[in-house]
Amino acid sequence: MATLPSKVTIVDVGPRDGLQNESNVIDKATKIELIHRLADAGLSKIEAGSFVNPSRVPQMAGSEEIFRTLSESETMGITYTALTPNLKGLQRALSVGVSEVAVFAAASETFSLRNINCSISESLQRFEDVCATALKQGVAVRGYISCALGCPFENEVDYHRVNEISLALLEMGCFEVCLTDAIGVATPKRVEELLSIVTTSISTDKLALHFHNTYGQALANTYAGLQAGISTFDTSIAGLGGCPFAPGATGNVSTEDMVYMLNDLGIEHGIDIDKLVATGSWISAQLGKAYASNAGNALLSKLKRSE
Amino acid sequence: MATLPSKVTIVDVGPRDGLQNESNVIDKATKIELIHRLADAGLSKIEAGSFVNPSRVPQMAGSEEIFRTLSESETMGITYTALTPNLKGLQRALSVGVSEVAVFAAASETFSLRNINCSISESLQRFEDVCATALKQGVAVRGYISCALGCPFENEVDYHRVNEISLALLEMGCFEVCLTDAIGVATPKRVEELLSIVTTSISTDKLALHFHNTYGQALANTYAGLQAGISTFDTSIAGLGGCPFAPGATGNVSTEDMVYMLNDLGIEHGIDIDKLVATGSWISAQLGKAYASNAGNALLSKLKRSE
Repeated sequence: MATLPSKVTIVDVGPRDGLQNESNVIDKATKIELIHRLADAGLSKIEAGSFVNPSRVPQMAGSEEIFRTLSESETMGITYTALTPNLKGLQRALSVGVSEVAVFAAASETFSLRNINCSISESLQRFEDVCATALKQGVAVRGYISCALGCPFENEVDYHRVNEISLALLEMGCFEVCLTDAIGVATPKRVEELLSIVTTSISTDKLALHFHNTYGQALANTYAGLQAGISTFDTSIAGLGGCPFAPGATGNVSTEDMVYMLNDLGIEHGIDIDKLVATGSWISAQLGKAYASNAGNALLSKLKRSE
Repeated sequence: MATLPSKVTIVDVGPRDGLQNESNVIDKATKIELIHRLADAGLSKIEAGSFVNPSRVPQMAGSEEIFRTLSESETMGITYTALTPNLKGLQRALSVGVSEVAVFAAASETFSLRNINCSISESLQRFEDVCATALKQGVAVRGYISCALGCPFENEVDYHRVNEISLALLEMGCFEVCLTDAIGVATPKRVEELLSIVTTSISTDKLALHFHNTYGQALANTYAGLQAGISTFDTSIAGLGGCPFAPGATGNVSTEDMVYMLNDLGIEHGIDIDKLVATGSWISAQLGKAYASNAGNALLSKLKRSE
């Protein structure tokens, strides 16, 4: 048996990646309550918003106000992060005191062009400016690589290219690179193959994984990631979100299912699963959708029977 | 990386384990159509019914008629199996020409008493008669062990006890033992620990695994099983079924999600995923419920977009 990490960091991306891909828009007060509830459940890192063009992504309008409110409340040991695609976004984030931002590169040229309207190398140049400016202000930068395990437009992902882009992001000052399968097509074989290449030049503590459960594979992939020594994973409360390339399909892997697994594996994470389940079923109701976490529904059902 | 099996056998238990745990009862004609569709999709083994007391399990009434109809149709290379809890059930199965039956033991005394109203050792004595009679008629017997990875009544499962019961079932003539987590509480660690014990005395080709996705862990567990060399898995079309101990929770792992994983892992199985998805969405509609396979919904969504 492979030795698994003894401790894992969970980054809940529900308030940003999750809500951004929900068809219903919730108001700022509800979003702030969601973030507070996640913090109260023990999440130490929460992706709270995105400084993109609000006319293009209306779900993310008002991120300034959200971060302003968060910075006023007690946030001991909790990091609220924001997506900043360019310098303009970073300036907005800096103006409201965001302490950690993220940039999104892609491992596929076609995806990069369609998603952020530039080639991979142009995007890296852009992120170099973002990194330099952020670091000068003492703000940490996380790098994401989309399509690291599969692309909706190109058949094959070149894992050596993923490795090069990861190195470039670390080189420009990102503290960590999060390898992302936002279309949820990967299985453990791809995870093993990708990590066997990337971990030859990058240590596992500088890598994170971000899986969507589109095809039901997210926890199998997580297990493959744990076996390879990765100890930071993105999840989304209640499995919020979806996939723009498969409307109606499942979203991010749910934080509840992940925490259930980590509990049973005996891996530390600091999160209270009962509070998670209460939060997950609450936000699903706010969005007017069925609660989509397997572990969440099972635990709720047990709770009802014991009442 | 562990070497995975090159070929896997999938046993679709949807028509029995799945439908038995659905609140809506479907008519026999629909059940027969479901079984035919699964056979047409490439499933080589299908659990088609159960010879239990129909007053206790109304969903399984009419199994005789179903097997009679199946034996009339072309079934080249396809095995239709039935659950036979005792000699009486076996006689009913034999009377309609069933070629493979299954007996259900449990690894927990409390579960055994509550589920089949006798101790584990009493159940094994009962199954000895079932096996002897079945084998004399040239009928193969599969052994199941419930609660092999977790029990709703007892905290700890003794994996050495699971090993002993497995050996007893093989000794009495079962061709294979299927280790079952019907409450879906296991994670890969339990699977690894159980298999590390059981595979010291039993070869992997005499073992099968049966996972429910109650807590979202089924495919992670499957991957751990594959890594340990197991090559037979139970699944249920559309994830039919549920959990009597957590009403409203997810059922068996869906055949579609399993086949998606095996395809991507490059493991042979002989099943056409498009036919599976058509069958899974059809039977869900017949039951008046939302289609619950992740891969199924993702593939349907892609299909709609390409039309």
